Amino acid sequence: MNSIIDKNDFDLNRYLREQKTKVESILGKVMPNEDVRPTDLHKAMRYAAFTGGKRIRPILCMAACKAICGSNTDAIYPAMAIEILHTYTLVHDDLPSMDDDEERRGKPTVHIVYGEANAVLTGDALQALAFELIANSNTTPAQTVMLIKELATAAGSQGVVGGQVEDLAAIGQSDKELIHWIHLHKTADLFYAATRMGGIAANANDTELTALGKYGQSLGLAFQIIDDILDDEPGNNVATTEETETETTCLAVHTAVEAKVLASEYINTALAALKVLPQENIEPLNAIAAFVIERTI
Amino acid sequence: MNSIIDKNDFDLNRYLREQKTKVESILGKVMPNEDVRPTDLHKAMRYAAFTGGKRIRPILCMAACKAICGSNTDAIYPAMAIEILHTYTLVHDDLPSMDDDEERRGKPTVHIVYGEANAVLTGDALQALAFELIANSNTTPAQTVMLIKELATAAGSQGVVGGQVEDLAAIGQSDKELIHWIHLHKTADLFYAATRMGGIAANANDTELTALGKYGQSLGLAFQIIDDILDDEPGNNVATTEETETETTCLAVHTAVEAKVLASEYINTALAALKVLPQENIEPLNAIAAFVIERTI
Repeated sequence: MNSIIDKNDFDLNRYLREQKTKVESILGKVMPNEDVRPTDLHKAMRYAAFTGGKRIRPILCMAACKAICGSNTDAIYPAMAIEILHTYTLVHDDLPSMDDDEERRGKPTVHIVYGEANAVLTGDALQALAFELIANSNTTPAQTVMLIKELATAAGSQGVVGGQVEDLAAIGQSDKELIHWIHLHKTADLFYAATRMGGIAANANDTELTALGKYGQSLGLAFQIIDDILDDEPGNNVATTEETETETTCLAVHTAVEAKVLASEYINTALAALKVLPQENIEPLNAIAAFVIERTI
Repeated sequence: MNSIIDKNDFDLNRYLREQKTKVESILGKVMPNEDVRPTDLHKAMRYAAFTGGKRIRPILCMAACKAICGSNTDAIYPAMAIEILHTYTLVHDDLPSMDDDEERRGKPTVHIVYGEANAVLTGDALQALAFELIANSNTTPAQTVMLIKELATAAGSQGVVGGQVEDLAAIGQSDKELIHWIHLHKTADLFYAATRMGGIAANANDTELTALGKYGQSLGLAFQIIDDILDDEPGNNVATTEETETETTCLAVHTAVEAKVLASEYINTALAALKVLPQENIEPLNAIAAFVIERTI
């Protein structure tokens, strides 16, 4: 009975709203206070972290943890680390030398408010904070090391940064394999890490971790395709500036209809992966998959 | 007879040469190959990591490990992580929006060769790699978590990045406390982490770790002062561009003679800290302290 269509038994909007509030409340506590020296840097870090956003990655991390062990407590620090890591990538993506964006989610970007040098440094400090948060999590040392490996791999030269590099180099190109590679690394790697890290915090076994990774990766790929579609709709450029910025859109190689079909296939792959997991607390992961394909903003 | 003056029984130059060769050989092996996708990013990361330099931080890390347990094997990955972390800070320091340097150690900086956007991303990927290397070290999970905490703290908003932020904000200011704060965080924090991480890899006890931290921190403070002095000498601007770049020099608040005395005091503090450690393998740490105060380039 875990159909994504039958949403009567799970209120996703309420769940997402509650989890977002929870994420932002904890985020406010784990970040350095604005009155700690250097105060301008800590203000900029908080400014970057609190400009809205759906908090989908930390929510996925905590939901994956709960799906495995019935509680999301041990995933809280890893979830914050993922959100902070994601935040740093947005700060650097917005820089004049990168996407040169002056606004994100309707607010001036970090470099507009704090200057370009401080924006570079704010991103740098956020990345270090992400790893510091994991190191301070209440998981066992063996789990913590696994979590660090997972985040470092997703964040590194063959993960998010690699995807961004190829994205910048690929402007104007229309090559299916290239665009898939960029989506996989620039976007899906962090979703993959988010769900696996939730699993690691819950002491998931290898089969469960593989399933969670498959779910996260497929979800991330679908998420990026839907972003591309939404961004291409006349008068609607909200979605892209909210979550990801891809110079190279899948609409360069697919029609919108083909792209929607492709996204649906990824969602089906994600849902299929969930079947090997315990089903007691699987509703949020099922429902988030449905949300990704159906979202309009 | 562990005097720093009596250097007859320890050939520091040979030691530094051998250790530098060792560091660079291992660095070449632990970094992603240039033929791994994205190839341009991996080329840029290697370009940044192999532009010379004394490799003093990784050498200190390995020497601290050997001083405690008689072998430096377990400190190899932490040492590489520190050097990679230091490398990323230099790549970002050189950016047009920061120090705007076109050359480092006589070679074009990363952004000159690979473009500004790629230089930002190269630094980002190097920081992630530093944490990935520690996570893959052959220390116990408990040690590895301690190592991550140490590096993340030194690298973060109240460490190297914090120092850099205050340095950029302090141009033209002459305030002793401010300049000390900048030196402490921008430069000494990474020396402090380097020696403590060597100790952690060697399973040092708390007393030993405190001593190693004191040694590293004092050495770092002396190192920065000597850098400022060398940089101020007519026709000699090699030192600063080799290791650190400080907008705010201690010569704004001290004469060169006063600064040299201050550096000597830090070196004496560093040497005193070493006295509580086992003395069998202490020569390199003693000799490096002497080297820092006596160096002319």
